[in-house]
Amino acid sequence: MQRIGFIGLGIMGRPMCLNLLKAGFPLTVFNRTAERMAAVVAAGAHAAASPRAVAEQSDVVITMVTDSPDVEAVILSEDGVINGMSRDGIVIDMSTISPLVTRRIADRLTEKGVHLLDAPVSGGDAGAIAGTLAIMVGGDREVFATCLPIFQAMGKTITYVGGSGMGQTVKLCNQILVSVTNLAVCEAVAFAAGAGVDPLVMIEATRNGAAGSWQLANLGPKMVARDYAPGFMIDLQQKDLRLALEAAGEMRLPLPALSLVHQLFLSCQRNSEGREGTQALIKSLQRLSGPSES
Amino acid sequence: MQRIGFIGLGIMGRPMCLNLLKAGFPLTVFNRTAERMAAVVAAGAHAAASPRAVAEQSDVVITMVTDSPDVEAVILSEDGVINGMSRDGIVIDMSTISPLVTRRIADRLTEKGVHLLDAPVSGGDAGAIAGTLAIMVGGDREVFATCLPIFQAMGKTITYVGGSGMGQTVKLCNQILVSVTNLAVCEAVAFAAGAGVDPLVMIEATRNGAAGSWQLANLGPKMVARDYAPGFMIDLQQKDLRLALEAAGEMRLPLPALSLVHQLFLSCQRNSEGREGTQALIKSLQRLSGPSES
Repeated sequence: MQRIGFIGLGIMGRPMCLNLLKAGFPLTVFNRTAERMAAVVAAGAHAAASPRAVAEQSDVVITMVTDSPDVEAVILSEDGVINGMSRDGIVIDMSTISPLVTRRIADRLTEKGVHLLDAPVSGGDAGAIAGTLAIMVGGDREVFATCLPIFQAMGKTITYVGGSGMGQTVKLCNQILVSVTNLAVCEAVAFAAGAGVDPLVMIEATRNGAAGSWQLANLGPKMVARDYAPGFMIDLQQKDLRLALEAAGEMRLPLPALSLVHQLFLSCQRNSEGREGTQALIKSLQRLSGPSES
Repeated sequence: MQRIGFIGLGIMGRPMCLNLLKAGFPLTVFNRTAERMAAVVAAGAHAAASPRAVAEQSDVVITMVTDSPDVEAVILSEDGVINGMSRDGIVIDMSTISPLVTRRIADRLTEKGVHLLDAPVSGGDAGAIAGTLAIMVGGDREVFATCLPIFQAMGKTITYVGGSGMGQTVKLCNQILVSVTNLAVCEAVAFAAGAGVDPLVMIEATRNGAAGSWQLANLGPKMVARDYAPGFMIDLQQKDLRLALEAAGEMRLPLPALSLVHQLFLSCQRNSEGREGTQALIKSLQRLSGPSES
């Protein structure tokens, strides 16, 4: 059984580690804030002193951190994974980061004979806990096959989507779909409320046809109930939309709706709603309408 | 059993009539272009010479025409339904028109002791043929109850949504959802293709999660296959978006994403794509990218 290393024990990383331990993988972990390792160590993981030390004791190292610079630091720095891995080791980055940065890191690792898979996830902390994450994997197909049992310990829908960076690209597509569909729901709910129809009745009447979406069925009723508790936080969504817009910018690909959603979420961030759930996007529309709207 | 009249035997009206006949309702029909009545008359309907003549022989008159002015003409003109109905007769307008016009017509009919239900549908000609339309009904709840067997002969999901005009309002919400979600799919497919991911793999990897929608599952693969055959035509979609934007304008309700989709569809109409299916929206994005995009 492969010896696994895991770096980044946040709200996603911790339950993913517990699922790896449950599946029987030997596990070495590192987290910058050391106390976050306690629960995972108590469940049987070994704590290491640096990303490099994790790599020295692992065949496969998983990184699950916030943004592109974090992944670069953890993998490429002096004390990073790159200086601890053996030849033919595998790094799996499950963070959501720039596909361009992914390919840059892959090139650096390849020089050392180390493989990189990019394997961002969707499904949130609920999916991480239940082991039902959707995982979109880019990189070498045979390396992917080697790691399938590892992915299966953490997720349910596991899709190999193409070469290096393509997992990130599909994740960004996922975020484009999620956010623009979210705005569709906001505008329909605002229209119904403004016209005097019960928005919940509207949702029931439309959700099973061509208008239907996960966002309508799940976020629509929360908007109506003014329940803004985060399933997925606006600040994190904005990070992903920035990555998507940057990648689209590199391609010179105009994405007007995504750009619009990004601007409207900025209105939410400006109004201290960045830590609310993405359904709070509807508040940006309400601000456009102004105080005459309740 | 109520005697039914039906005005407007287009691509939707004809199969709806056949389902009413199948359910055993006595049926009188009128269509401006007389030859369009042939198939329905052959199936047992009686042809009348004017909307007024239809009304004189019916307890319930259904109208299924294109736009607000058509409904006004058919119901309110000298030779219209209003001058043929008995007191306590019922008019059901199943066209998609302005909620404001609906309420104006309802007021005129009320003066004559005639009831109006607004009952627009979704599900397209396939739903009309199969008798599986979604029907969103506004108007008096008791009048709605009286007409339920009529609706059940033509549709499956039948929802009473509120007072007069509210059926139209919910239908416009449906069209807001459909169109903005369509744009979400266009941008994700364009992003995937531009970044070198197989868009079909992207669709498979994302459709069962928070990114999922009817539009993604049904229109996404058509976009990839460059199959622009109409399920629902852009010209008709634009008519509905114009109605939604007008109603939002009356409410002074800003709907930036809906407005954007309306503009992008205008690019399709300008390029002679108005009679293509709504999935051809993606061509407006491709035009923004210009000839360097294939």
